[in-house]
Amino acid sequence: MPLLESLTDALRVLPGVGPKSAQRMAYHLLQRDRQGAGRLADTLARALADVRHCARCNTFTEVEVCDRCLSPLRDPALLCVVEMPSDLMVMESTQAYRGLYYVLMGKLSPLDGIGPRELGFERLIERASDGVVQEVILATNFTNEGEATAHYLGEMLRARGLRVSRIARGVPVGGELEHTDLGTVAQAFVERRGW
Amino acid sequence: MPLLESLTDALRVLPGVGPKSAQRMAYHLLQRDRQGAGRLADTLARALADVRHCARCNTFTEVEVCDRCLSPLRDPALLCVVEMPSDLMVMESTQAYRGLYYVLMGKLSPLDGIGPRELGFERLIERASDGVVQEVILATNFTNEGEATAHYLGEMLRARGLRVSRIARGVPVGGELEHTDLGTVAQAFVERRGW
Ligand SMILES: [Zn+2]
Ligand SMILES: [Zn+2]
Repeated sequence: MPLLESLTDALRVLPGVGPKSAQRMAYHLLQRDRQGAGRLADTLARALADVRHCARCNTFTEVEVCDRCLSPLRDPALLCVVEMPSDLMVMESTQAYRGLYYVLMGKLSPLDGIGPRELGFERLIERASDGVVQEVILATNFTNEGEATAHYLGEMLRARGLRVSRIARGVPVGGELEHTDLGTVAQAFVERRGW
Repeated sequence: MPLLESLTDALRVLPGVGPKSAQRMAYHLLQRDRQGAGRLADTLARALADVRHCARCNTFTEVEVCDRCLSPLRDPALLCVVEMPSDLMVMESTQAYRGLYYVLMGKLSPLDGIGPRELGFERLIERASDGVVQEVILATNFTNEGEATAHYLGEMLRARGLRVSRIARGVPVGGELEHTDLGTVAQAFVERRGW
């Protein structure tokens, strides 16, 4: 296969990119922005080699355990569970929380074949059962899938005798953390309830 | 900068990709399709190293002069000028044309700073003045920019004493070759007129 076709093909791994836009991207990279294209190839290769998951919180990191998990300033008795690293960022921006995190890297999504096994729920259970964590705060989105994930996790964690809470539904029903103003997210945190 | 941020940043060289979708792409590549991501990094690097422009027709190729330009089956007296390699493909699919091509790799677009110099019109003039080419067929799109490109090229080429034609406006006004049915493109070819 000619390299141009291989490239167009390879670009289709990107979510939301069909054949036409993959071709447009390939032309653009080779014709209009070779420098940017080189940076992309290089950064992607380095990220694949060096980005891994924090052994404690599961977020993306380049080290074994991330800085946040090692910080003596965070309260290790609180563990907040979010779907994605971008949700963690939103939480951090509210400055309403000083505990630790666990990042699921997804949500239950049976139609896409993503279940408790794929999300590694066992690792979360283990992390939450370290004897230091006193409360697990479920901060998945208030979408159908986020709610289902919270319900499932709540049952699993309570079954191990852990105290579980859910951030308050100050976040609009059907809404996502990323698209909610910080004040609302902060308030939802304060008003978390037993789960 | 953390590699994850660098990657999100690097993905923004892709046309039509804003900060949110770049982040979504970065997560997807690192979390859901590392194999595809590896293939993309590798293919992009190889394409940047090996894909160049054909010395005769200017299309993307991995060799000095492409197979089509070297083919003894093509009529070297006819030179068809198109905007992009995808337009050349459309022309070929009609099977209405057996001459050679010149691919501009763009169109005049003053607002984007793309003029005759950026498109290398001098190289086309040189190519068309080889003494073998008898007719230059302008097959740029019938958009405003494609028409302006055809007008400009028509004047330049006629000034060198070359015979110039334009494919017929069977292609809908304002339309692009890529989105036109093959029969219409074939007809437009047959009905080309002096320019
Ligand atoms: Zn961590
Ligand atoms: Zn060629």
